[in-house]
Amino acid sequence: MLIVMRLDSPKEDIERVKNKIINESCSPHEIPGASKLAIGITGPTHKLNEEDYQLLPSVEEVVRVTKKYKLVSRMMKNEDTLIDVNGDIIGGKELTIIAGPCSVENRDQAFTIAESLAKMGVKFFRAGAFKPRSSPYSFQGLKEKGLQILNDIKHEFDLRIVTEVMNQNTVSQVAEVADILQIGARNMHNFAMLDEVGRLNKPILLKRGMSATVEELLLSAEYILSHDNYNVLLCERGIRTFETSTRNTLDLNAVPVIKKHSHLPIIVDPSHGIGIWDKVPAMALAGIAAGADGLMVEVHHKPEEAISDGFQSLTPQSFEMLINKIKQIAPIVDKELCLN
Amino acid sequence: MLIVMRLDSPKEDIERVKNKIINESCSPHEIPGASKLAIGITGPTHKLNEEDYQLLPSVEEVVRVTKKYKLVSRMMKNEDTLIDVNGDIIGGKELTIIAGPCSVENRDQAFTIAESLAKMGVKFFRAGAFKPRSSPYSFQGLKEKGLQILNDIKHEFDLRIVTEVMNQNTVSQVAEVADILQIGARNMHNFAMLDEVGRLNKPILLKRGMSATVEELLLSAEYILSHDNYNVLLCERGIRTFETSTRNTLDLNAVPVIKKHSHLPIIVDPSHGIGIWDKVPAMALAGIAAGADGLMVEVHHKPEEAISDGFQSLTPQSFEMLINKIKQIAPIVDKELCLN
Amino acid sequence: MLIVMRLDSPKEDIERVKNKIINESCSPHEIPGASKLAIGITGPTHKLNEEDYQLLPSVEEVVRVTKKYKLVSRMMKNEDTLIDVNGDIIGGKELTIIAGPCSVENRDQAFTIAESLAKMGVKFFRAGAFKPRSSPYSFQGLKEKGLQILNDIKHEFDLRIVTEVMNQNTVSQVAEVADILQIGARNMHNFAMLDEVGRLNKPILLKRGMSATVEELLLSAEYILSHDNYNVLLCERGIRTFETSTRNTLDLNAVPVIKKHSHLPIIVDPSHGIGIWDKVPAMALAGIAAGADGLMVEVHHKPEEAISDGFQSLTPQSFEMLINKIKQIAPIVDKELCLN
Amino acid sequence: MLIVMRLDSPKEDIERVKNKIINESCSPHEIPGASKLAIGITGPTHKLNEEDYQLLPSVEEVVRVTKKYKLVSRMMKNEDTLIDVNGDIIGGKELTIIAGPCSVENRDQAFTIAESLAKMGVKFFRAGAFKPRSSPYSFQGLKEKGLQILNDIKHEFDLRIVTEVMNQNTVSQVAEVADILQIGARNMHNFAMLDEVGRLNKPILLKRGMSATVEELLLSAEYILSHDNYNVLLCERGIRTFETSTRNTLDLNAVPVIKKHSHLPIIVDPSHGIGIWDKVPAMALAGIAAGADGLMVEVHHKPEEAISDGFQSLTPQSFEMLINKIKQIAPIVDKELCLN
Repeated sequence: MLIVMRLDSPKEDIERVKNKIINESCSPHEIPGASKLAIGITGPTHKLNEEDYQLLPSVEEVVRVTKKYKLVSRMMKNEDTLIDVNGDIIGGKELTIIAGPCSVENRDQAFTIAESLAKMGVKFFRAGAFKPRSSPYSFQGLKEKGLQILNDIKHEFDLRIVTEVMNQNTVSQVAEVADILQIGARNMHNFAMLDEVGRLNKPILLKRGMSATVEELLLSAEYILSHDNYNVLLCERGIRTFETSTRNTLDLNAVPVIKKHSHLPIIVDPSHGIGIWDKVPAMALAGIAAGADGLMVEVHHKPEEAISDGFQSLTPQSFEMLINKIKQIAPIVDKELCLN
Repeated sequence: MLIVMRLDSPKEDIERVKNKIINESCSPHEIPGASKLAIGITGPTHKLNEEDYQLLPSVEEVVRVTKKYKLVSRMMKNEDTLIDVNGDIIGGKELTIIAGPCSVENRDQAFTIAESLAKMGVKFFRAGAFKPRSSPYSFQGLKEKGLQILNDIKHEFDLRIVTEVMNQNTVSQVAEVADILQIGARNMHNFAMLDEVGRLNKPILLKRGMSATVEELLLSAEYILSHDNYNVLLCERGIRTFETSTRNTLDLNAVPVIKKHSHLPIIVDPSHGIGIWDKVPAMALAGIAAGADGLMVEVHHKPEEAISDGFQSLTPQSFEMLINKIKQIAPIVDKELCLN
Repeated sequence: MLIVMRLDSPKEDIERVKNKIINESCSPHEIPGASKLAIGITGPTHKLNEEDYQLLPSVEEVVRVTKKYKLVSRMMKNEDTLIDVNGDIIGGKELTIIAGPCSVENRDQAFTIAESLAKMGVKFFRAGAFKPRSSPYSFQGLKEKGLQILNDIKHEFDLRIVTEVMNQNTVSQVAEVADILQIGARNMHNFAMLDEVGRLNKPILLKRGMSATVEELLLSAEYILSHDNYNVLLCERGIRTFETSTRNTLDLNAVPVIKKHSHLPIIVDPSHGIGIWDKVPAMALAGIAAGADGLMVEVHHKPEEAISDGFQSLTPQSFEMLINKIKQIAPIVDKELCLN
Repeated sequence: MLIVMRLDSPKEDIERVKNKIINESCSPHEIPGASKLAIGITGPTHKLNEEDYQLLPSVEEVVRVTKKYKLVSRMMKNEDTLIDVNGDIIGGKELTIIAGPCSVENRDQAFTIAESLAKMGVKFFRAGAFKPRSSPYSFQGLKEKGLQILNDIKHEFDLRIVTEVMNQNTVSQVAEVADILQIGARNMHNFAMLDEVGRLNKPILLKRGMSATVEELLLSAEYILSHDNYNVLLCERGIRTFETSTRNTLDLNAVPVIKKHSHLPIIVDPSHGIGIWDKVPAMALAGIAAGADGLMVEVHHKPEEAISDGFQSLTPQSFEMLINKIKQIAPIVDKELCLN
């Protein structure tokens, strides 16, 4: 349920509404918009009486939400969510580029790639310190040492760091370095983890599970928002189908569907989405054309030597050519590419 | 196997090669390119001795093809195939727009839509006279009467007609009216039909089956080419996955994969691919950005009254807005939108 | 819509109902049951007035069918359909075994296998004369010659022949030899073919398409029944999923779902369903335990030399061991194994 | 890599082998079999020299394992793993029944169901105290209170408790009550959790992820075994496909595939696998016939009032009828139903 109030409602009117909600064993979530103030209600809302709220001062409208997800939906908040990452905005008109290697392999590798990306004006650097791998015998990342390298890169090049957290016990450790914490596809349904990062005051990039529906992705985001962390970026990274000529099937349908139903920004990861480097640029452009708010692209200066995912990584040179194409497509879909 | 010869090879040298192939119980397929002449060989090629051919006059190279498909592959012919449809070219630099209603419903409806499309400069008109439907009780098309209406539209507006054939016994009847015969997704694996249209001298638009891999689509095209009909357009129209918020999952990965391995043009059908009209333009633009050679879009002047697929049809007005966006994106991916 | 009448209704009462249906532009389908006579109605039934029929003599009940499929449903006919194949019954309590090689390869191979199966008491022999193959360069079957061999086997061993038809133009030719015509998975959505075999007076074995839903399978069967051929056996043969360790994913869920909603017999094909010979017996037993009315199993005396599908074929020896297990499981699920 | 030694090897010979492995930066895993002792080696085994080991006393053979998974494979250990749960054995000839409600809803409900199951001789009681739910607003289980009820049931009825752990921080708390800890489908790829339960000395029931391949399931089990917890039961519970008439597609193909490649027991969950109660018995029998080592079935005395998954729950009455059928099928597939 959703209470729509005037944006200039007196504080006491807002408090009265929120207290009434709490008294009825539900939780109020204040969602300020451009022209209205919405108070989302979660919990056993079927017991609430709409008319009781309609009569309270400053209340304009009471709306029942029929979708399973509430806080992430456009019904709760019609305007696009803008996420402020230390001064850089994601969402709205901004087209965001997140780039970097699959893993931090060593200081040299990470610094070399970070430097070339920073020169191109890229603001967001991605690289894994903790790597989820199907096999226990595959490279699992440099872990703490990797985080340290990312921290140094952050300060050396003034880059925003995007890195994955895959263990509840290391959330706070990762959060000290990361500007955006990534929840990988394999943890999209790890609800204990979603609860944990919902309590942080940091942006979260939530990847769609390999066989998750769009509704399930939105419900996983809802877990995070329900703890009052509204800074969630969604990420489409390919789903699992019968097709074997590509690593995954990038589901770009998800982009306009999510833009319609949710106010959260949606990022496309063409590197995992197709999994073959020479076809990544085509899918990157397609993602932008479909209306995505940004891209996450794997870049490695020596893809053939990469410890993980080299086959899907662009070189800095081919990535720069892609950036030039993106610059041209962005305005056609009403976006501005935000590079330094 | 593939014999590469000089483009200026004397006729007798070419005949000598072809006769030798025939004598060894295989079939030669002459494929002229920009700089070379290739002679593709199909049949029991494992029995052929490469050296026997290497020594023949005018032969430059003998190549073993390891992919299951041969004639459709870039190994056989590196240049993009250009298909001439009564003077209008599909493939190469050209970006082709095919538009029209799902079905011919009656003369008025078809003429109204055709007229508005012709005014926008659209050259290719699509509409079904024979409709494949899951249920025997759904509208199956106007059949012969529908073909007659399409024939009249063809002459009235000088439009090229694209329409589906779904019965082996009506192939010649449909071919009298159609400039391009469509093989629907449900018949991609109807090999008797593929053999039949392979013997025609008409362009064929071959849709990918709902759960066909890219390799299987190329092998179905190979059936048509093996009968020496090289005028095949491939069409990606969405595959079947677990996702339920969209009608199908448009697999745009298929576009760069096919462009890499085959010389045939690839068309994207965003209408079936996502199945919800207000999200069709996003997927149409994404298809172009991914490198498609054209789009096939459902357009209806009164979608809410359409007998079939109204929910995924654009109005002429929203289609015209889409055309304007396409015009801007085309040059970024090295294409020219070809409208009258 | 469905008109339920007394089984002993006078002929004139039945005719009155049928004529009324025809006068209202619909089609009546007479479906005699054990205790009632049902008249199924297809066509524009929404225009019919239920009360008009309720008042006619001998009419007991008028029922609206809400499923998309009608004639195949248990609403139309509650009793299991029994199919009489020249005196041998399929359906009901009978557990039917159909066995044989993927293809007729030559007279010796086919006769050797047929002989060993006949000795075990198997009544139904399967083997392909026309083979649908993804590639135009794969073995396409012995065609007419294969049919001739099947015809000879039929008379030599008194076996019922099950063989595939994949070309509309050869339906009558195949029907001369086959006791049961098989429509393969790739033609489940070839509606022109379904119409064609619907007009035959022969049993049809209809395989589920690789990505067809159960509802779509039932609707394809409905095409055949709507032409008044009620002798349809359904066949589950595995669907296409992301799993790569098996050829297909045998969907045994389909068995109890189909038994619930349809009166038609359902056969399980574990050979295509898992695609690895040493795991075929496990899936065959699972199919019986799930409630299937029979099995279709590939058997070859020299699997390692088979031209097609050898990897999924059992030898006559391992098939005989399977038969012994089936004999034991059958009575637990209220079936009787019918061997000669 | 794998070192095969005589079963009666002197302790010092075994120690010598293990020390050499450790000195080369790898880890030895002792796996006693019926006739041989195997020492599995994980870590950077490519650096090891096979001949160095072949010459050590008591060593019979050195084997390279080519599958990605090692400790779970039949190459490492050919005999079926038997898991001892406080005196009750799972695996081998035993056919194990795990039954109970989806969730502990309250003391009365759980006790009522537990009592009726105990009376039938069921030894393993399943019920969730912590429930993973797609929506944050769905019932999440009674949590600690639920565990307390399960603990009381354990002692009251001498039942072994199977319950899910979905939060790394509650592993030890759940392990105090549970005899078998369940890792749900959504956490199959939560590697931090797998590491955690690998360090326990308790049996783990690992469910296959909704879109996990069989190989990935085995690799997730490998995580647990690599921490030297060998007491892992695998569980097939249905995968996600395009089919919509059932909740999931129970992939029984997985049963013979896993039995072939792994020594771990495999349990089938027909309740989630088909998701419709009246079709659960058919799939339960099919699972046994396919060769499963046991079943996990949802049972509720008032399914229509269940807080979660009532639609897929059997009543104790219908469950008892199923047990009777299982008793008959078990010996046919060389199993013994183990009830009290």
